Amino acid sequence: MASSWMSIPPNSPFSLSNIPFGIISTAPDSTPRPAIAIGPWALDLHVFASNKGFSHLPEITPHLSVFSSPTLNAFAALGRSTTSAVRTYLQSIFDENTPYPDILRGNPELRATALIHQSHVTMHLPFTITDYTDFYVGLNHALNCTRILRGIGSLQPNYRHLPVGYHGRASSVVVSGTPIRRPSGQILNPAAETPEVMFSACRKLDFELELGCFVAKGNAHGEPVPINEAESYLFGVVLLNDWSARDIQAWEMVPLGPFNAKNFATSVSPWVVTMEALEPFLVPSMERGRSVLKYLAEKRKANVFDINLEVDVTTPAGTTKTVCHTSGRHLLFSFPQMLAHHTVGGCPFNTGDLIGSGTISGADDPATFGSLLENTENGTKAHVFNEEERRTFLQDGDTVTFRGICGEGEYGLVGFGECQGKILPAVEFKA
Amino acid sequence: MASSWMSIPPNSPFSLSNIPFGIISTAPDSTPRPAIAIGPWALDLHVFASNKGFSHLPEITPHLSVFSSPTLNAFAALGRSTTSAVRTYLQSIFDENTPYPDILRGNPELRATALIHQSHVTMHLPFTITDYTDFYVGLNHALNCTRILRGIGSLQPNYRHLPVGYHGRASSVVVSGTPIRRPSGQILNPAAETPEVMFSACRKLDFELELGCFVAKGNAHGEPVPINEAESYLFGVVLLNDWSARDIQAWEMVPLGPFNAKNFATSVSPWVVTMEALEPFLVPSMERGRSVLKYLAEKRKANVFDINLEVDVTTPAGTTKTVCHTSGRHLLFSFPQMLAHHTVGGCPFNTGDLIGSGTISGADDPATFGSLLENTENGTKAHVFNEEERRTFLQDGDTVTFRGICGEGEYGLVGFGECQGKILPAVEFKA
Ligand SMILES: [Ca+2]
Ligand SMILES: [Ca+2]
Ligand SMILES: [Mg+2]
Ligand SMILES: [Mg+2]
Ligand code: NI
Repeated sequence: MASSWMSIPPNSPFSLSNIPFGIISTAPDSTPRPAIAIGPWALDLHVFASNKGFSHLPEITPHLSVFSSPTLNAFAALGRSTTSAVRTYLQSIFDENTPYPDILRGNPELRATALIHQSHVTMHLPFTITDYTDFYVGLNHALNCTRILRGIGSLQPNYRHLPVGYHGRASSVVVSGTPIRRPSGQILNPAAETPEVMFSACRKLDFELELGCFVAKGNAHGEPVPINEAESYLFGVVLLNDWSARDIQAWEMVPLGPFNAKNFATSVSPWVVTMEALEPFLVPSMERGRSVLKYLAEKRKANVFDINLEVDVTTPAGTTKTVCHTSGRHLLFSFPQMLAHHTVGGCPFNTGDLIGSGTISGADDPATFGSLLENTENGTKAHVFNEEERRTFLQDGDTVTFRGICGEGEYGLVGFGECQGKILPAVEFKA
Repeated sequence: MASSWMSIPPNSPFSLSNIPFGIISTAPDSTPRPAIAIGPWALDLHVFASNKGFSHLPEITPHLSVFSSPTLNAFAALGRSTTSAVRTYLQSIFDENTPYPDILRGNPELRATALIHQSHVTMHLPFTITDYTDFYVGLNHALNCTRILRGIGSLQPNYRHLPVGYHGRASSVVVSGTPIRRPSGQILNPAAETPEVMFSACRKLDFELELGCFVAKGNAHGEPVPINEAESYLFGVVLLNDWSARDIQAWEMVPLGPFNAKNFATSVSPWVVTMEALEPFLVPSMERGRSVLKYLAEKRKANVFDINLEVDVTTPAGTTKTVCHTSGRHLLFSFPQMLAHHTVGGCPFNTGDLIGSGTISGADDPATFGSLLENTENGTKAHVFNEEERRTFLQDGDTVTFRGICGEGEYGLVGFGECQGKILPAVEFKA
């Protein structure tokens, strides 16, 4: 494990092994621009690039303008071989035995302007997202939902054959920290004896613990991405909260899928952890019990990530309870399989498009279930915070925080930081 | 009915009453730029604006750069009052009693450079689309699908309460004329006695006759669009073909809705007919049999458009048959209602976002049904073109053409032109 000449705390999610990319702004410079996270610091890549920071990486020289862009799209579009070289180069810059001490280590002026403590940084949505798709390949989640909502223990016949997914709303993807307005809409009156439609603020507001994956390279319209090339089309991973209005969903969902129940907001963590950084944490996906068609058959066995995932709910009074602890491994299909399936009919992707995994839940133990629908059995078993505070679904002023980290012990952690959102009261509709 | 000093054929869809907007390029100038259609001509708004064409419309002067943009987004974002003023001004320029004869009528140099015959013009996608939603509010279509595919005569309980819709794929929306590659994917083997999944090129390729509506003005995240303001958020309407792979759809659709069955392509006609031009053709939507919740209650009664719609299928041998003739009035909800519903939970829209109506079918008579699924009873009753040529679903080399026109008789027609696509053979997958 390489060490840095910088003082990186041993439990930092942003070790030298990580080097995630994000978009920052600061009080002195409000223009959003690319950065990496290293320990508690952000390295401003606009400042770094403008001050000869990349002078020992000639292949990036023609493309330095990507570091003046307000999103990561232009950077990611350079392709995995270039973005991977940039990450490796930045690791070498921060290595305690850096071959280029003149660049940053021995350059206090550049250190003073390019390295900014993350507490002084505002994070922005890392990509412009023109299409967002949410999959549903968390097998345990799917089984839980079927059991809780329909009382049956088996899934639809297609479930193990293909990564089930639906198109989501790109416009409402927001970066961690953005407050989430409780949605209103049509629900069935829970007090009515016969089904009765009513207008209401959502009464069953939930989170869904997911991983999101940003696409680096697009495919041309009509040209499927071959399964064993699909990984190279991906840029990196974030924590994703697919906020869900369960009562709106129950009424609207059949036959065309979730709509207003999901499109009011989706939150993502701001630092995009690269596919390269996550590669050491690959493990085989869940047992499928059957083979897949050739267009989905990956050569590699280890294809999903063993990421420790946690969900905290914090009440307005400040009480916090961890309501879920699970792993990113509980998925039936990998991101490359999702991309291969999504494009098999010719659907085109653009740089920055976002893919959600579906809710990640462990088996059997409710403390591993990635939504309140599941771990409260549709609101029938409350989380007890203390004598005064209980939660089935989310209340106004609650804050939901996701954390994700790979690795064990100290040093070398590859983490995501947080994906957080606080619930605002619903809009008041005029009578 | 105003006449023009230009010679506009009496049956032109682009009368002086219309003035639709689109994006053109030409052989001498391959840069896409805004234009209007007038009779058989396009008026190049980039050239027109650059040559003092708008000198009698001071309110557009600060915004002339919108006419150098490669899409209509910047123009539409100016808002309905400005874009409507531009359309009215252009009508006055072409009026036989134009108050500004110096601008174009008496300016042969500008006429020679700004007016281009449409046969010399390439049309482009009119907007950059960052989100596309397809609704399902064609009541007759929904009833037909339920009857044909499930053998039942009633709809889901939510159907009359809200405009049912699902998020579609923005990246695969293409302009009329773009060839459509037959998709491949997972289907159930129709020859197998017990359900058996197989990989195949789509064998049930279909069209769906819809109207599309482009959004002019966005709403902020968390702020619903009030129903009686919703119309002012819309820019205009196009013909929309929601190409559909029925066999892929049948296998994938439950429980989260159509996905690869729809996301391979959606075609739109290139000239966007403004809400202003369509206003004379408003008629009341279909009978709902119940009231709607207040957030969907429009003050106006006439809210959908009586547009004559036709679908032709042309075989590779060149035989053409009109397989559908219906009206845009067969919708249960209006575009303002769709927008109000879509945003009621706070989902944000951006300029250029696209809303599809859902398939438009008349009642009872198969010749009025807007898809082959419906008018061939799921492939059991073929369209007979002649002794050699029959069609249930689309074959490679077939061309589907939608036409739409409002008004009767001659002069003053408000039409859409065509929305056309030719089927290319499926991609060959390597063994
Ligand atoms: Ca989800
Ligand atoms: Ca449709
Ligand atoms: Mg969501
Ligand atoms: Mg489509
Ligand atoms: Ni000619």
